[in-house]
Amino acid sequence: MKSPDTIAAVATPPGVGGVAVVRISGPDAIAVTMPLLRRKDALAPRHAYHVTILDGSQTLDDGIVVYYPSPNSYTGEDTVEMSCHGSRYVTQRLLELLVTHGARLAKPGEFTMRAFLGGKMDLAQAEAVADIIDATSESAHTLATRQLSGQVSRQFDDLRSQFVELASLLELELDFSDEDVEFADRTKLLATLDAIEDVSRRTAESFRLGNAIKNGIPVAIVGQPNAGKSTLLNALLGDDRAIVSDIAGTTRDTIEELVTIDGFLFRFVDTAGLRHSDDPLESAGIERSLRAVQRADVVILVDDGDTIEEPRFAEAVADKRVIHVRNKVDLVLGYSAPSDVIPVSAKLGTGLDELRHSLVEPYLVMRNSMADAPILANARHYEAFLHILDDVERTREGLSRHIPTDLVMVDVRDALYHLGQITGQVSNNELLDTIFSRFCIGK
Amino acid sequence: MKSPDTIAAVATPPGVGGVAVVRISGPDAIAVTMPLLRRKDALAPRHAYHVTILDGSQTLDDGIVVYYPSPNSYTGEDTVEMSCHGSRYVTQRLLELLVTHGARLAKPGEFTMRAFLGGKMDLAQAEAVADIIDATSESAHTLATRQLSGQVSRQFDDLRSQFVELASLLELELDFSDEDVEFADRTKLLATLDAIEDVSRRTAESFRLGNAIKNGIPVAIVGQPNAGKSTLLNALLGDDRAIVSDIAGTTRDTIEELVTIDGFLFRFVDTAGLRHSDDPLESAGIERSLRAVQRADVVILVDDGDTIEEPRFAEAVADKRVIHVRNKVDLVLGYSAPSDVIPVSAKLGTGLDELRHSLVEPYLVMRNSMADAPILANARHYEAFLHILDDVERTREGLSRHIPTDLVMVDVRDALYHLGQITGQVSNNELLDTIFSRFCIGK
Repeated sequence: MKSPDTIAAVATPPGVGGVAVVRISGPDAIAVTMPLLRRKDALAPRHAYHVTILDGSQTLDDGIVVYYPSPNSYTGEDTVEMSCHGSRYVTQRLLELLVTHGARLAKPGEFTMRAFLGGKMDLAQAEAVADIIDATSESAHTLATRQLSGQVSRQFDDLRSQFVELASLLELELDFSDEDVEFADRTKLLATLDAIEDVSRRTAESFRLGNAIKNGIPVAIVGQPNAGKSTLLNALLGDDRAIVSDIAGTTRDTIEELVTIDGFLFRFVDTAGLRHSDDPLESAGIERSLRAVQRADVVILVDDGDTIEEPRFAEAVADKRVIHVRNKVDLVLGYSAPSDVIPVSAKLGTGLDELRHSLVEPYLVMRNSMADAPILANARHYEAFLHILDDVERTREGLSRHIPTDLVMVDVRDALYHLGQITGQVSNNELLDTIFSRFCIGK
Repeated sequence: MKSPDTIAAVATPPGVGGVAVVRISGPDAIAVTMPLLRRKDALAPRHAYHVTILDGSQTLDDGIVVYYPSPNSYTGEDTVEMSCHGSRYVTQRLLELLVTHGARLAKPGEFTMRAFLGGKMDLAQAEAVADIIDATSESAHTLATRQLSGQVSRQFDDLRSQFVELASLLELELDFSDEDVEFADRTKLLATLDAIEDVSRRTAESFRLGNAIKNGIPVAIVGQPNAGKSTLLNALLGDDRAIVSDIAGTTRDTIEELVTIDGFLFRFVDTAGLRHSDDPLESAGIERSLRAVQRADVVILVDDGDTIEEPRFAEAVADKRVIHVRNKVDLVLGYSAPSDVIPVSAKLGTGLDELRHSLVEPYLVMRNSMADAPILANARHYEAFLHILDDVERTREGLSRHIPTDLVMVDVRDALYHLGQITGQVSNNELLDTIFSRFCIGK
């Protein structure tokens, strides 16, 4: 690999603010920085110097500069961080000057990619950096933090060890293959395979929870026109409106509203009424509602007494969790709800806590049941585990059919390959480019 | 004054990015920070520690923390700066935790207001901080940097000294007022007053340049429909499109385009054609064009051979600088332009440099003629100088009418009061609130 050049970028969010941080990383980090400082003495490591930043002989800005010598920096390389005023002119000019002195503008995620390549973190940890930045709910943040800490990677390493044990048991057999015997302890072999399959399956299944945590749980609110769906949504939005963010790769319905309940992000879609109709305009609304229901994990059925006429609805909700809500109970004297119906008055705010609890409870239960098990929140990792499950399946089949051990070994090696892709023991430029291009610049 | 509390805010631009900086200032800066750090040892001044930031017993984030002890900080107070991931969740939660431990969320500009109140900078310098952040052109940035450095304040101090000298000359006279003589050296008194008036007038007049530099120079491009106005604008935009920013307090026309030429920001409005018409729709376009011309400092008259019919146009451009451009000269074989017309082919890109030069030249000349004289870019300072000029005028009148010296002194004191308002020797809460409320939060 050719020796790396020195990269620079604004690390703080784009736009105008009090402070911006420009990050410089690479062997020439000091060399490209010093010409811009009025101060000519060497920078002591990790000391925050108040400096005058020069543009030629003129003052560009006053700022703070900190030098993080290799290897004790984010990237592992020599790194300089300059804080300046958060002005577009200052930051742009500062980058121009750094480029003049030999730096190159960093690509998205390039600092974190260097941290990975320099061995400061594995690939799953590097991906967690983007997840932390994008997280808008406590649960998504916690998930990303666990992954960044390396806890998840260690769990994958445990799985890797089990695969390695499986492989060594098979190797034993291979050593004696000339003698055409199956020497290895089949019981132990199968027990190891069972354990591997169990962990892999649970991990793959955790993606359902992880994805819900990371991207938010889509909820469709459906019901007759005038059932009070919008009032209900607004009541839920009240105090819990989520911090809004753009989550990379997700397209939002414009009428989606984000609500945080117990640290979980819910994505509410208020649908048009579901009355059966021949009016083409109303039909288009119904089509949209049905699509919202199809995309949803949870359907809140708001029923103020009437029933839904639309025949395709039953089909759409078949595999969904449905929460029945009886709205406008304030209008019915002495209303007594059936046990599977939550009585709500969106107008008065009654019943909302029960509805919130009902929405979030399955996710809390699921999360508790996983305790410290890995929870996949990354589609790439999920895909790798689907491959791993296939590999495990083929391994088992090979063993049961008494296929030659060296052929069975291929499947075990495939599984190790797919597992290695997650933490980056196995990687290539194309994979890295795909992963890091979704990062922001400066990270 | 009651002892200040401890304030906290995100200092970096709002939004999502690699890094965010949270700033904490006040006597309890350390006390509110330490409970959030896993590290329990005292923080050495100005050392950049890599820390784990805690949310209770959980990890909120990894980050860098630097402690700037009083008085060597931006505000002059004890200050802590924490860098964390630029995630909305992390920054919001971090602020919540700091508030839990005794900090208060900072108001816009409150850090800089404290820097002013703590004597780290005067009011004109504090205002320059906002100007630096908002600057989108080199000239605006240079102006703000000069003001932040204190260079402008020192020039005001010189003027203040002259006023003080004037006052002491008058005091001399006052001492002898019982004897009903005019003792003071009238020649010296008037010479001092002349010098003061000269500086004050030039400074007030500099606002025309300063305002143009700070807010950009409005340019209207007018001409017949199909004269190629939009093509011309696009050709000018080519390489010089300005860094876009929201300049506080300015409302933008949606069709305004920003171009930087030689470090000056120009705000181009491409107007509708100026053909006289009875069509109400076209008339509305003409009204808009006329308003654009009225607001402009410079009018580019694009004429591809025809003349402008609209009779109100001549009136609108009467006090404007008009640059005549003959567009589409590529279509006219051997075209020879009159000396006051710039021949341009927007399509081929010829003549654009001459047009740019013609646009920017008067501002370059104006700026050079001011050399190191103060250039006012702040409407509040300009207003103060208009008051000062009034005060000087009344002083002169009082002297010429032999009004009692102690009455003349009132006008001199008024002038000192207005001058003091600029740098903040004279200030009050209302004034400070007005000034700092236009800052961003975290500065």
